[in-house]
Amino acid sequence: MQELFAIFQEVLSRGDVFPYPEETSAAEFAEIWLAPNSFSYVAVDDQANGEILGAYYVKPQWPGRGSHVATATYMVAERARGRGIGRILGEHSLKAAQERGYSAMQFNLVISTNEPAVALWKKIGFKIIGTVPGGFRHRDLGDVDTYLMHRFL
Amino acid sequence: MQELFAIFQEVLSRGDVFPYPEETSAAEFAEIWLAPNSFSYVAVDDQANGEILGAYYVKPQWPGRGSHVATATYMVAERARGRGIGRILGEHSLKAAQERGYSAMQFNLVISTNEPAVALWKKIGFKIIGTVPGGFRHRDLGDVDTYLMHRFL
Repeated sequence: MQELFAIFQEVLSRGDVFPYPEETSAAEFAEIWLAPNSFSYVAVDDQANGEILGAYYVKPQWPGRGSHVATATYMVAERARGRGIGRILGEHSLKAAQERGYSAMQFNLVISTNEPAVALWKKIGFKIIGTVPGGFRHRDLGDVDTYLMHRFL
Repeated sequence: MQELFAIFQEVLSRGDVFPYPEETSAAEFAEIWLAPNSFSYVAVDDQANGEILGAYYVKPQWPGRGSHVATATYMVAERARGRGIGRILGEHSLKAAQERGYSAMQFNLVISTNEPAVALWKKIGFKIIGTVPGGFRHRDLGDVDTYLMHRFL
């Protein structure tokens, strides 16, 4: 988990993707990343001793009557950006969620100013199905809109 | 908490409002209702020895960079339905959230077939800002759409 926590902190410190406070501890991170009924994968670099390049977890959007819908969180190490890792993780997570019986994937907090993410999710079949005005307090831009994105599996 | 849990079970058993599994325990309910950084109120009947008629809790929609937006859950006892308790709780929660510095209120799982709830939230200023297709497995109707509703405070 330590390697994952380091990537989490890296992404968190950008202040433009994750909502969690900067002081989120390793224990709190573990609770987020290893949520009940979740599953998780990492992308490793075969050429570099299995160094972790990115990771995701998938969990039910709701318990019970909403548990047929999955939700997921992704992160890519700073040094691995621009290598298509996000897309590999995204496509892997859709397949893995479908295999586990989920019927749809829903992202609850896609930051509207994170254009590469929005473009990537659209490329692999997601649609914006909702917009929360000013839902995210961006480090540099103030309150920016967030998207709810969704696709069936 | 026991009185609240009884109302929760009552509402839960309808299978048309809450997502949680029917077997949700009192301890699990307490974790839901007393979430970190939440606040909670109950509506009591002055004419009936302070019997609880309904309740709500409010918590941050996200930690950190999303914590200026509140989210809330409401429930009304079966025997108190049709007496305007939902509206009293709704209006009270908006005022209480505003007083605590929240800038908006967001509902994540308004069941589209729960017409009285949708109508009530619209009446007190909420707008539908997103629709999740088939997001809720309704006991009688199968998969029905859910709404994301929002208003500024």
